[in-house]
Amino acid sequence: MGSQSDWPVMRHAAAILEEMGVPHEAKIVSAHRTPDRLTEYAKAAKGRGLKVIIAGAGGAAHLPGMTAAMTPLPVLGVPVQSKTLSGLDSLLSIVQMPRGVPVGTLAIGEAGAVNAGLMAAAIIALSDAAVAAKLDAYRAAQTDGVAEVPEG
Amino acid sequence: MGSQSDWPVMRHAAAILEEMGVPHEAKIVSAHRTPDRLTEYAKAAKGRGLKVIIAGAGGAAHLPGMTAAMTPLPVLGVPVQSKTLSGLDSLLSIVQMPRGVPVGTLAIGEAGAVNAGLMAAAIIALSDAAVAAKLDAYRAAQTDGVAEVPEG
Amino acid sequence: MGSQSDWPVMRHAAAILEEMGVPHEAKIVSAHRTPDRLTEYAKAAKGRGLKVIIAGAGGAAHLPGMTAAMTPLPVLGVPVQSKTLSGLDSLLSIVQMPRGVPVGTLAIGEAGAVNAGLMAAAIIALSDAAVAAKLDAYRAAQTDGVAEVPEG
Amino acid sequence: MGSQSDWPVMRHAAAILEEMGVPHEAKIVSAHRTPDRLTEYAKAAKGRGLKVIIAGAGGAAHLPGMTAAMTPLPVLGVPVQSKTLSGLDSLLSIVQMPRGVPVGTLAIGEAGAVNAGLMAAAIIALSDAAVAAKLDAYRAAQTDGVAEVPEG
Amino acid sequence: MGSQSDWPVMRHAAAILEEMGVPHEAKIVSAHRTPDRLTEYAKAAKGRGLKVIIAGAGGAAHLPGMTAAMTPLPVLGVPVQSKTLSGLDSLLSIVQMPRGVPVGTLAIGEAGAVNAGLMAAAIIALSDAAVAAKLDAYRAAQTDGVAEVPEG
Amino acid sequence: MGSQSDWPVMRHAAAILEEMGVPHEAKIVSAHRTPDRLTEYAKAAKGRGLKVIIAGAGGAAHLPGMTAAMTPLPVLGVPVQSKTLSGLDSLLSIVQMPRGVPVGTLAIGEAGAVNAGLMAAAIIALSDAAVAAKLDAYRAAQTDGVAEVPEG
Amino acid sequence: MGSQSDWPVMRHAAAILEEMGVPHEAKIVSAHRTPDRLTEYAKAAKGRGLKVIIAGAGGAAHLPGMTAAMTPLPVLGVPVQSKTLSGLDSLLSIVQMPRGVPVGTLAIGEAGAVNAGLMAAAIIALSDAAVAAKLDAYRAAQTDGVAEVPEG
Amino acid sequence: MGSQSDWPVMRHAAAILEEMGVPHEAKIVSAHRTPDRLTEYAKAAKGRGLKVIIAGAGGAAHLPGMTAAMTPLPVLGVPVQSKTLSGLDSLLSIVQMPRGVPVGTLAIGEAGAVNAGLMAAAIIALSDAAVAAKLDAYRAAQTDGVAEVPEG
Repeated sequence: MGSQSDWPVMRHAAAILEEMGVPHEAKIVSAHRTPDRLTEYAKAAKGRGLKVIIAGAGGAAHLPGMTAAMTPLPVLGVPVQSKTLSGLDSLLSIVQMPRGVPVGTLAIGEAGAVNAGLMAAAIIALSDAAVAAKLDAYRAAQTDGVAEVPEG
Repeated sequence: MGSQSDWPVMRHAAAILEEMGVPHEAKIVSAHRTPDRLTEYAKAAKGRGLKVIIAGAGGAAHLPGMTAAMTPLPVLGVPVQSKTLSGLDSLLSIVQMPRGVPVGTLAIGEAGAVNAGLMAAAIIALSDAAVAAKLDAYRAAQTDGVAEVPEG
Repeated sequence: MGSQSDWPVMRHAAAILEEMGVPHEAKIVSAHRTPDRLTEYAKAAKGRGLKVIIAGAGGAAHLPGMTAAMTPLPVLGVPVQSKTLSGLDSLLSIVQMPRGVPVGTLAIGEAGAVNAGLMAAAIIALSDAAVAAKLDAYRAAQTDGVAEVPEG
Repeated sequence: MGSQSDWPVMRHAAAILEEMGVPHEAKIVSAHRTPDRLTEYAKAAKGRGLKVIIAGAGGAAHLPGMTAAMTPLPVLGVPVQSKTLSGLDSLLSIVQMPRGVPVGTLAIGEAGAVNAGLMAAAIIALSDAAVAAKLDAYRAAQTDGVAEVPEG
Repeated sequence: MGSQSDWPVMRHAAAILEEMGVPHEAKIVSAHRTPDRLTEYAKAAKGRGLKVIIAGAGGAAHLPGMTAAMTPLPVLGVPVQSKTLSGLDSLLSIVQMPRGVPVGTLAIGEAGAVNAGLMAAAIIALSDAAVAAKLDAYRAAQTDGVAEVPEG
Repeated sequence: MGSQSDWPVMRHAAAILEEMGVPHEAKIVSAHRTPDRLTEYAKAAKGRGLKVIIAGAGGAAHLPGMTAAMTPLPVLGVPVQSKTLSGLDSLLSIVQMPRGVPVGTLAIGEAGAVNAGLMAAAIIALSDAAVAAKLDAYRAAQTDGVAEVPEG
Repeated sequence: MGSQSDWPVMRHAAAILEEMGVPHEAKIVSAHRTPDRLTEYAKAAKGRGLKVIIAGAGGAAHLPGMTAAMTPLPVLGVPVQSKTLSGLDSLLSIVQMPRGVPVGTLAIGEAGAVNAGLMAAAIIALSDAAVAAKLDAYRAAQTDGVAEVPEG
Repeated sequence: MGSQSDWPVMRHAAAILEEMGVPHEAKIVSAHRTPDRLTEYAKAAKGRGLKVIIAGAGGAAHLPGMTAAMTPLPVLGVPVQSKTLSGLDSLLSIVQMPRGVPVGTLAIGEAGAVNAGLMAAAIIALSDAAVAAKLDAYRAAQTDGVAEVPEG
């Protein structure tokens, strides 16, 4: 993620990966304040054995796209809600990538972070039966957890 | 895709998959006009051996999200440009999924279709060295193809 | 409605139907988390004798449109206010349906829920004189309730 | 509709009603240029035996809401695409009605006009088996008309 | 204004008129809940000697435009901030009037109400030297009241 | 108006004033390219006997607001449609004036220019019976000119 | 800045200039309430030895553009967050300047004020080695201050 | 600029610099397709004696911000109009930079490119009297070039 301030949102992605049994790491890499760290991180990612990168950022959110520019790995982007424009700026900065360099973008904010975790798990699950099983269980529990009638 | 009219956009995804050597199929499945076909397609997808689903639709674009609701496979969404609101409606209908059911959303229109193909290839490449090699070559050629100075 | 969290908004629709003497039921049917329940509910609706369906959802709100795809009954949609984009995403996801499958969309939030109840009552009133009378009385009382001069 | 210039859009609603065998009339009633005609039309509608009113207008589109203010009949609104803001102004002017006076709003432009016709037919079909049968046939033909694979 | 709930905003217009020495009245006239009162009010306005009408409303704000449709007097519109869309819906519903029926629209919310009062006073001032003098004094005091350097 | 390029829009205001028999002048005064001309024009306006100023501009449209800042006369603003943002930028730049300095804003583009002419005429008509009569005739003809049924 | 109420935002620009050792002054100059002060200030700025002007304003924010119209100095604009439209109006009013009169626009709100200070310092640093050194130190400290892993 | 396709817009910046006698170079540096070239270019810029960098890009426009992240020089950003969202995405991606790394953003499209050239010239003019003189002459000619009355 681009900043410590994104963590309250992005930790939901980490929590899902934890729950799905997917090994992961959480790093702060600011596209604007630490561009060299970004370059090193993105270029080394595949060699280090990473499979998927989740990048969350807000405002003029360049982290997901710049990461995608420097790795062949699939990159998922989470638009963090911005103070002034509610994350519409974050969303457009992440999703409107030019042809040639994709970022799979999730919803603005917490829901997007949760879903980035789930989508990363779904990608991992393609070649990891244990993760696939946990994901199926998660989805089944989710379906079962929806009450039939509203309360209150 | 949701309609024959989406094909001029979505065939760019197919073309990329062709170029990357990723076997694929192109189907018209309308969430609103053929909901049963959608249910059958989405539920059968994993069993049929599909790895990734790319779903493109415009306006109140429900195809990507409903597909994602009925398969554990990773689903990529392409917002097709709409006549009246330039695809902003398509984008928000696809990307703003609630927590629990992710759709990895790409850019509006042709660029998004190209990038959906590339992202699907990147996911396949995680376990297919031949696709990974083609993707690397594509990216390298893309980088080499950028002229240093503008013409005209 | 798509979620328990929509109930504080959607119960206003139920309250109006109660007041108009229109028999009704309130169910949680999530397009994304319980797609099978949605299919069963929508397909069975007409046979069970339902006349109108009110569907409320937020964000990438697919419930109203998918319900409309699977029933010939008139479907009314209520865009529930979303956390990040104030319900603009909900509104566009519901109202911008492609030709062939209509959803009659009401205002974002509580006002929309109230009005969905009133519109359902107006539809029922076409063939139910008692409901028509209650609706007329409601509208008359509403008109009489508007003070001539502001207070405070 | 509010103006002769809305007819190229709104005639799609008339065509659907024709196809569904629903008797109907098409009138130009401008909320702003002919407010008295609007008052007369809306107040007389129920007494004349009308069941549903479809009102289409663009820009600061007040026709649907003002009609709904003066009749207990269900009113459907079609936002006609405006020159400058693509119909976003028309949409918000129609759909954001205050609590107490509903307008069931359809999509911007032609798709919305088609769907207003279909929704009106669905309302009529609740008490008219012939219309219900035609509507079912229309929906079935629509489903059958979706090709499985794209062409071109 | 269209509702008692608009008064906390619209009373700023009344306060300015008071301060400028312009006789005025404040009425609640709802376009949607009291359409007959609107017709009577708008049609009688000129004959009663009114010179300018200030109409404030929110959401699908039809009051200013419908008033303008039924009086030759200049009508000023104040978009009241709406709960969900911050008054963007109110603004577009008021300002985007079709050719032939103008509404002079002010800013969203309190600033707009103050300015509607000032603009009405400026119109009255064209033929009332006392109001013109008060307006000049107001503007001069406003200019003098701007500190040169910020505090705090 | 702010530029020669605004004339195709703004001449509709001049045409209406001509038709209403209101003496007028058309000037190009650019807030950004000729700020001194703006200052001179705005400050001299009242002394020269002008009654109302119509200012049209596009993009970051500062002409109406700056004119209003330097004259006690009522100022009407016409947002000219901009190339990139369809006049939404023009509209917000003109209408969102801070408290203390009003601009009565009309619709974006041609309709707004026509209506600025009509509103200026309505203001003049308050103290000019001939203009009032012409305005009444214009409105009556406009009402009569609305056909009852659509053609084509 | 245009108002005392902008100071809580704009003082962040002043604080940065202080930190960078750039002499500066803070003035309230309202484009709308004190247009003469604006003219005097802008025209005298270069002669008084100023190098860069930072102008912050909200809503229909005309201060940056009008300042730029009256000085050859580089002008930086800060869109102050507005009450109703979150600063989108401020942003468009400042950034969408017509060709010929540029305003270098920063982000909405506090971040924009900080960055206006930094950009002014970067311009000064082109001919002032001491400022350049402080700016380099600021940027280095900023980079060093980004933790590698999130806390909490 | 980020792409050959941006040149029809960005050459207007080059033309202005030519006219102002400011030595300059035009390069294609794609943030996404040639990230290494971007890093080299941005890091070397100051050492090579560049004073100001103008960066133009469209869609998820990361070039200006990433350049600013890797140079202490002032960076000006030009949002190039995008196909689907008219450059609103480009604008927000460029202007909404987080605190610490500024980009002075100009208008969307051609006007922005012209103004980026003028603003760069204004910065250079602070320490180059010849450029200052040319800029003054340009501004004076621009003022003189505004006709007093519209034609046609």
